[in-house]
Parts: sequence; structure tokens; C-alpha cells
Amino acid sequence: MKFVLAPDSFKESMTAKEAADAMERGIRKVIPDAICIKVPMADGGEGTVQSLVDATNGQVHYVDVMGPLGNSVRAHFGILGNNESAVIEMASASGLELLQKEARNPLYTTTYGTGQLIRAALDKNVKNILIGIGGSATNDGGAGMIQALGGKLLDKDGNELGLGARALNKLHKIDLSNLDNRIKSVNIDVACDVDNILTGKKGASYVFGPQKGATPEMVKIMDENLIHYANIIRKELDIDIEHVPGAGAAGGLGAGLMAFLGANLRKGVELVIRYTGLEEKIKGANYVFTGEGSIDSQTIHGKTPYGVSITARKFGIPTIAFAGRIGDGVESLYNHGITSIICILNGVETLDEALKNGKKNMEHTCERIVRLLI
Amino acid sequence: MKFVLAPDSFKESMTAKEAADAMERGIRKVIPDAICIKVPMADGGEGTVQSLVDATNGQVHYVDVMGPLGNSVRAHFGILGNNESAVIEMASASGLELLQKEARNPLYTTTYGTGQLIRAALDKNVKNILIGIGGSATNDGGAGMIQALGGKLLDKDGNELGLGARALNKLHKIDLSNLDNRIKSVNIDVACDVDNILTGKKGASYVFGPQKGATPEMVKIMDENLIHYANIIRKELDIDIEHVPGAGAAGGLGAGLMAFLGANLRKGVELVIRYTGLEEKIKGANYVFTGEGSIDSQTIHGKTPYGVSITARKFGIPTIAFAGRIGDGVESLYNHGITSIICILNGVETLDEALKNGKKNMEHTCERIVRLLI
Repeated sequence: MKFVLAPDSFKESMTAKEAADAMERGIRKVIPDAICIKVPMADGGEGTVQSLVDATNGQVHYVDVMGPLGNSVRAHFGILGNNESAVIEMASASGLELLQKEARNPLYTTTYGTGQLIRAALDKNVKNILIGIGGSATNDGGAGMIQALGGKLLDKDGNELGLGARALNKLHKIDLSNLDNRIKSVNIDVACDVDNILTGKKGASYVFGPQKGATPEMVKIMDENLIHYANIIRKELDIDIEHVPGAGAAGGLGAGLMAFLGANLRKGVELVIRYTGLEEKIKGANYVFTGEGSIDSQTIHGKTPYGVSITARKFGIPTIAFAGRIGDGVESLYNHGITSIICILNGVETLDEALKNGKKNMEHTCERIVRLLI
Repeated sequence: MKFVLAPDSFKESMTAKEAADAMERGIRKVIPDAICIKVPMADGGEGTVQSLVDATNGQVHYVDVMGPLGNSVRAHFGILGNNESAVIEMASASGLELLQKEARNPLYTTTYGTGQLIRAALDKNVKNILIGIGGSATNDGGAGMIQALGGKLLDKDGNELGLGARALNKLHKIDLSNLDNRIKSVNIDVACDVDNILTGKKGASYVFGPQKGATPEMVKIMDENLIHYANIIRKELDIDIEHVPGAGAAGGLGAGLMAFLGANLRKGVELVIRYTGLEEKIKGANYVFTGEGSIDSQTIHGKTPYGVSITARKFGIPTIAFAGRIGDGVESLYNHGITSIICILNGVETLDEALKNGKKNMEHTCERIVRLLI
């Protein structure tokens, strides 16, 4: 019997690989010689580097880059097992979690470190770069990112702009002639699950600015600056990204990646499925097991269990999803290839206990469910 | 598809009938026209009257009897749907839960009310009486019970003994000539899951006395009194019950029921299975669902899920057990007909929430499990 084990991470409890390992242990208690293909998954958010590295026997690399407020941070990125693809989480270099709450100020934060991460990936001679852009601390439209890669953003006097969203209103000219040459020959995929445009009430500043520490006054300034930024990009590069869905993701980094690097924005789980080769691995399986810490009415909006199940459904393979918590409104998932959803708890536990016991609970629950399948 | 739904009660959360109803709702979400035979179960402990009445469309009757310390209590018993069998829980008349902690004193408590309950059942012209004897407050060897039914326990001077364990050392003569006549034509089954003998260190007084409020000195007196009691029974009735397994159950009520009423002691779940007609109902089912609040290493010692599963196994029907809590060491149940054990929680909850949400959790979990079975 062949099982494909493709869970996401269970946040604060298990990495995706640990979850898949626990699933395997449970299965083998019932079917010792089961074939278990483990494909740790992610949806482009936190854990994507780890999962893709784990799924492909790749390697995590560390590099010191500029953090969101100019300090140095040790960031990481992954090189997949094929040595042809890199995976980056922008939050590793420019993430909100890198800043104390009181230090968060999206007028000042920069994506410069994300650009350095991209450069570090280019140094590995990859052909593809997958960039997860969730969890950003920034609102600079990707300006810092492109500066780190050799792009010049100049003011009226021909001087390089300072870092952060607050400087964007000074942008007058864009010079990409010194852009890192290797960019041209690399395919850049951006995992992006929001469809916010760059500016306005549904744009980066208004929707995501407050959670990054912006006051209403700051939001207004940031939005005006992004409008100016989009205008100069339109004028200088003949590209209009202002109202493209996803342009507003990660404080406009989505816009910058599209405008300057020709990146493709895709649903995170779609990219992870492609980069892990899940489709190939899934063929011939009797069951696909997936899962995530919480499965609820949001899962259908591009979360890993949903992405895995629609992939498995292409081949007529049933998917069973495991979760630490099953919320309301999950029934619609049954129309998209998920046969059933199983909670891994074995009794009343505190949240801390449940997180701590995640692997054991997963193992026991998979054992008990597999007993129903044979 | 035919399901037999035979759970025990989930203590403080659902009666057995409510659990079976929730199972049915979950099943019907997946298979609207499923045949669901609901057989609320019990193991002879608390809830046995309710479950047997529910399982057979019987009726609960109420009657005022003497409580453990002579006060009046409203007790209940059940008449099963066939009108031929009664079911009694001794704890309803003579139970520990009827007394405040500080009032508990097994030198004084009496099973007189239990005798009155048996008499009330006889008034209903039944042919069988099932007596569950768990949860007793007493240590009187069933002396009060037999006095309530017309038996005379006399001292040297021919005077009737007082109530409670402390009087047993005065017993000199037993006169059953005035015993309620109808006893002879009634079959009495006692649900008894302990095999303690009447006297000694493994007897009623030493093992169960302390939890009923006895000090070490009281335990010693009670044990000596039961030894005397057994001696007189041996002499007067030519019956030796002192070392019979189960004689020490319920403060020696097991001994009294055997000696005076010719009762049969059996595992509780076996009797409940017989009285509910579970075997007949189970035939032709595709699946049997059972369950209990907690399933753990104790379940195999005669708890409902175990009894149900070995019954289903006779007919080759798989049993799935549902629980609010799955403890360690349940794997041995897999060798006795239980296909799998499923926890009904849907996420982290406090115990109070889990008890309150029991029905909803059961319904959702059964729905999700049935999705795996079709």
C-alpha cells in the first residue's frame, strides 16, 4: 500500500517533515511494509524553505544581510536537492518578527536584505528562485530589494534614494543598467496569496500598514508615496503595476518584483507543489495524507491541505487531512478532494500540551485511521 | 448500510442514548438512509437503569425508600420494555453519593432501601431483576436488604438486629420464613465487576471501607463483624459465601444477594448485553459503533466498548469505539474485535467545554469517520 504524506507544518508543534515522519510511524504500526513517500509541504508562508529543503533533500544556507531597520541579521535560504532552484522567505531578512513591537515603523523598514538574499541565491547558480513574501515588516514597494541588486533609484539631483517607504516620494529616475546581470537568466516565482493592489484603500499601505506599526497619518503618507512610486515606474519602465492583483503584497514588494525582475506571482501552494514535484510523487498512491495545525473555513483559500487534495483528485486518489483543530465550515472541502478531516488530539489537553504532544498524537491518530482503511 | 450504535454514557456529558443519537446524526449526514439501530449500553454502573430503559423503550419508576442513614430518599428503578424485567441501581437507594462526605460512616449505613427497591420491582410482577451494585455507601453484607424483604436477623434474645455493619456481630439466628414470597419465582442477576471476597485483607471492609469513610479501627470491626455474619449464614443456611468472588462487592451486598436470594453474579456488561438483546440486534450490521467517555487500559476489564466488541466479533462485524479521551495501552483492545478507537475532540478544549460540546463533537466525528467507511 502506498501513502503520500504531504502535510504542512503544524505551527509551534512540528515542522512539515516531523509531521510526515509521525504519520509514517503511525502507518507502519499497522502496515509495516507500507510505501511512504514523504513530501513536506508549505504554502509559501513561514516554513516554506524548511519544507522544500526537506522534501527535496536540499540544503539550508545562512547569510548575514541587512535587517528591516538597517541592523545586520542572519537570514537563511534553501537550495533544493536538484541544485537548480533556490527558495527564499523574505521574512527571514525583512520580516516583522525580526523587530520588537515598539520598533516597528514601516516608513523606515526596507527590503534591502531580501535583495541581498536573492543575490546570495544567484551566487549558487540556480535557474529558479521561489520567493515567499509573507510576514513583511516593510512598505517600500521593493525599492530596497532592487537597490541591493544594483538598481539605482535616483532623486531629482541624481542622488540615490534613502531606504524605506518615506523616501519614495523623492523618486525621479530609475536606472537598471547596473542590475545584477544574472537576474535575466533566472525564473523568479513569487508565492503570493493576497490579491491586494498597490495603492488606495485596498492597497498595501491601508490594508497592511497598521499591522506593521503605521498610524493613520503614516498610512496616508505611505500610500501617497507608493502612488508616486508607481507613476515613476510607469514613466520610466513603461510598466503599470499599480492595480495588478498582488502588487500590494508585502508592502508593495510584489509590485517591485514584477516591475524590476519580471517575477511571476502565483498561489504559494501551487508553487510548492511544482517545486516539490508532488504530482509525480503522488501517482499510484492509495492514499494521500495531508494536514495543518488548523483546518477551517480558510483552508479552501489556497492552504496546503486544499492544494494537496486538488492535486490528488486529478489522479482519483483520496486525501485525508489531519489537524490539531477542526474549525467550522470545513464541509466545503469535501467537494475538493478531501475525503475526511481528522483531529489528532487524544483527549483534553491545554494548548501547550497539544503543541508538545503533536508528534505522538499524530502517530497514534494515523495508526487508528489506517486501521479503518485496510 | 446498517449501523448498530451501542455506546455507554459519556459521564457528565451525554447519556448513552444521547451519544447514540449524536452518532446517528453524524452518520445520516453522510448516508441519509442508513439503518441505525440504537442500543444505549451500560456496564452495570451508574446509568444502567437509564440505558436499559432507553434501549428497550421501558419506563423509569420512582419510589421513596430508606436512604443509607435512615433518612428518606427518592430512588428509581426501571421496568424494561418487555415488562418482564426490572433494573435497579443499589446506589440510587444506598449509594455513597447520597451522603455528604462528613456523614459517611459504613458502621451505620444500611442496604435497607435497596431491599425496598427490590420489593417495588416485585410489585411490578417482573420475572427478572438486574441489580447494579456499584457506588454503595454500605458495609452491612446486605443485612438491611434482606430485612426489608421480610427476612429476620435475630440476636441471642430473639430481637431483630439494628441496621448497619456495627450490629452484625450480634447476629445469632436467621429466619427467612417471612421472606417476600415472590422472590422464589424471580431470577435475580447482579452486575458485579469486582471479585473481592467477603472478609480479610482482600475483603469488603479492608478494600472498600476506607473510601466509604471508615477509619482503620472501623475497618477492623467491620471485618470481624462480617466474619461472624458469614459464620452464622454458614451455620443457619448451610451456605458458604465468605470466600466466593464478588461476595465482597458493595460492602458484602454481593454475599447477601447470593446467600439470601440465590442471585447470580455476572459481569455488568454481559448482563446489559443480555437484557438489551444486543446480540439479536447486531446481526446483519455492517458496523458497530460503541464508546465511552474514556477508553484506556482499563476498558478491557469488562467495560462497555469491550463487551460490545466481543459480541460484534462473534458475527464478524467490525466495531469502532469513540471516546472523549484515549489513554495509553489501548492496543490490546485491537485483539478483541475493536477495529479502531477514535477521539471525538475537534481541537483544544477545556474539560468543561469538552463535556458541554460532547454531542456536537460526537456528531462531527462520526460524520468524518463514516466518510472513510463508504
